[in-house]
Amino acid sequence: MSDEQGVLEVPARRIPVPRSVSPEAQAMLAAGRFVEEVDQPPVDDHDAWRAFIAEGEQSMAAVAARAEAYDVAVEEIDMDGVCVFVCTPGGVEAADPRRFLDIHGGGLVGGAGPLCRAMGIIAANRMRVQTWSVDYRMPPDHPYPTPLDDCVAAYQLMLEESRPADIVVGGESAGGNLAAALVLRARDEGLPLPAGVVLITPELDLTESGDSFQTNLGVDSVLVGSLLPSSRLYAGGHPLEDPYLSPLFGDFTKGFPPTLLTAGTRDLFLSNAVRMHRALRREGIEAHLHVKEAAPHSGFFGMAPEDAEIDEEIRAFAGSRWSSPG
Amino acid sequence: MSDEQGVLEVPARRIPVPRSVSPEAQAMLAAGRFVEEVDQPPVDDHDAWRAFIAEGEQSMAAVAARAEAYDVAVEEIDMDGVCVFVCTPGGVEAADPRRFLDIHGGGLVGGAGPLCRAMGIIAANRMRVQTWSVDYRMPPDHPYPTPLDDCVAAYQLMLEESRPADIVVGGESAGGNLAAALVLRARDEGLPLPAGVVLITPELDLTESGDSFQTNLGVDSVLVGSLLPSSRLYAGGHPLEDPYLSPLFGDFTKGFPPTLLTAGTRDLFLSNAVRMHRALRREGIEAHLHVKEAAPHSGFFGMAPEDAEIDEEIRAFAGSRWSSPG
Repeated sequence: MSDEQGVLEVPARRIPVPRSVSPEAQAMLAAGRFVEEVDQPPVDDHDAWRAFIAEGEQSMAAVAARAEAYDVAVEEIDMDGVCVFVCTPGGVEAADPRRFLDIHGGGLVGGAGPLCRAMGIIAANRMRVQTWSVDYRMPPDHPYPTPLDDCVAAYQLMLEESRPADIVVGGESAGGNLAAALVLRARDEGLPLPAGVVLITPELDLTESGDSFQTNLGVDSVLVGSLLPSSRLYAGGHPLEDPYLSPLFGDFTKGFPPTLLTAGTRDLFLSNAVRMHRALRREGIEAHLHVKEAAPHSGFFGMAPEDAEIDEEIRAFAGSRWSSPG
Repeated sequence: MSDEQGVLEVPARRIPVPRSVSPEAQAMLAAGRFVEEVDQPPVDDHDAWRAFIAEGEQSMAAVAARAEAYDVAVEEIDMDGVCVFVCTPGGVEAADPRRFLDIHGGGLVGGAGPLCRAMGIIAANRMRVQTWSVDYRMPPDHPYPTPLDDCVAAYQLMLEESRPADIVVGGESAGGNLAAALVLRARDEGLPLPAGVVLITPELDLTESGDSFQTNLGVDSVLVGSLLPSSRLYAGGHPLEDPYLSPLFGDFTKGFPPTLLTAGTRDLFLSNAVRMHRALRREGIEAHLHVKEAAPHSGFFGMAPEDAEIDEEIRAFAGSRWSSPG
């Protein structure tokens, strides 16, 4: 079949703000797209990438501000030059063995340093257990496999003092990519597997082969275009379809821990979550799919009751996986 | 907020056949829309409706042909003039107490008689237990509440010889509407509830308030426009938002059986399934969501491995609900 055969012509449309979501979510959707298009630099222009990443991180300042509101204590572990932020919510007892390993988002290029710390605090507040947030190195200076190596190293460090049955691993967006990839790596390297995996609106397919990359283009107000340039920058010449880069293409006949997946109906990554759910279920692996009505990528930035509701699902799932009681 | 405020302008797009589905599913998607638009008659023109329904049922002839291939024995029960097709797959033992009550689809206006029989055979083949398919009366002659009354009557008849723990109730599309509504009615009338509910790409919201009624318009190749005229014909003057007409708006604090829901990412009814899943989960009710990549309403007409995979999920779910072993 030629590429042109069967192309579906979808006319221009005017989509009203849906009545089917909370007022908070309606307000966010009514605000429209955050940017009209993304003009990612050429893969080889590292200076342009540094400027692009810095600009993107400025737009994430609201995330950092949100984290300040939470009662979470933060310590730092130096892991051979890579920082791990250890985020402990107020009220968690020192003897509580439950752990969440959070891999931050940011498109595989952004979210370092203070943003990694802030996302760790937000994850700790969500999970209500001690949460480690890995400040993994990133492109342009550190393309694959360094970011994944850093995440695997943090998991190994966590295993030194925690039982695997007390560990749940997860991440949002690009963090969902690295969380799933680290579990595949751990499995392939014979490490004990975590008790559960949480993949929040995850970037599991750097080749962007899923249908929602097309059907939700222009509909998702957060992700407004292809991320192929940054994905290629991240890959550093490795094939995008390698399961360590696109965990959706992993071999799940070899097993994978019970997994919770989320996405939104307007999410460019909807197909990622749906396809990963099916890939796991096809092999009889416990997997739970939760989809937010009308939500773009990343949901409603934690501002809507819809987000709180999914946080509750995530906590309940992790609670069912940790072997130690809360 | 005015209706115009926050309207999202989505430009025209050309969506290629996705590489992310099976060759069989790709072939179906490459065939494009079944019709370019649906011109439903005015609600009051009953003769025009009769012609419209007859035409629609002709296009469902392929369903009847598919049913012929299956080894399923069919008997008929006359329920005060309403027929129930009792469909028993070959190999099912007479003593097997497990039952599936199937409510057929057809837009709340079509699918009567031989099509009801065919859909019952297909459901029986999927479920692998004795399956009852209710030939409920429909508009224009029998608007709501007669169709739902007939479904409730069939459930009551089934309860006369079966334990509720041996019964799973379900339906596809409009059948999902009536299956969910009959469970709400049974609950409100103090009848024992079935062990589980299966809602396949269900029409749970006749008001069409879900976001996918907009975002997937022109993307779904099976449902290509609003069904409000036929829904109003069905409602017979009753408010569309009544939970017996739009079960999504039911009060689930009063309970509901464990439920499996399916939809497709291109499905006009995606929001129906997603919102019902959340409404049940919000009350802590066991509910499982399965979404088919790139699938329009009704999936791939049972022609693709993706359909077989979801059938397997449905069987596994029902198997976990029936109290008697297979």
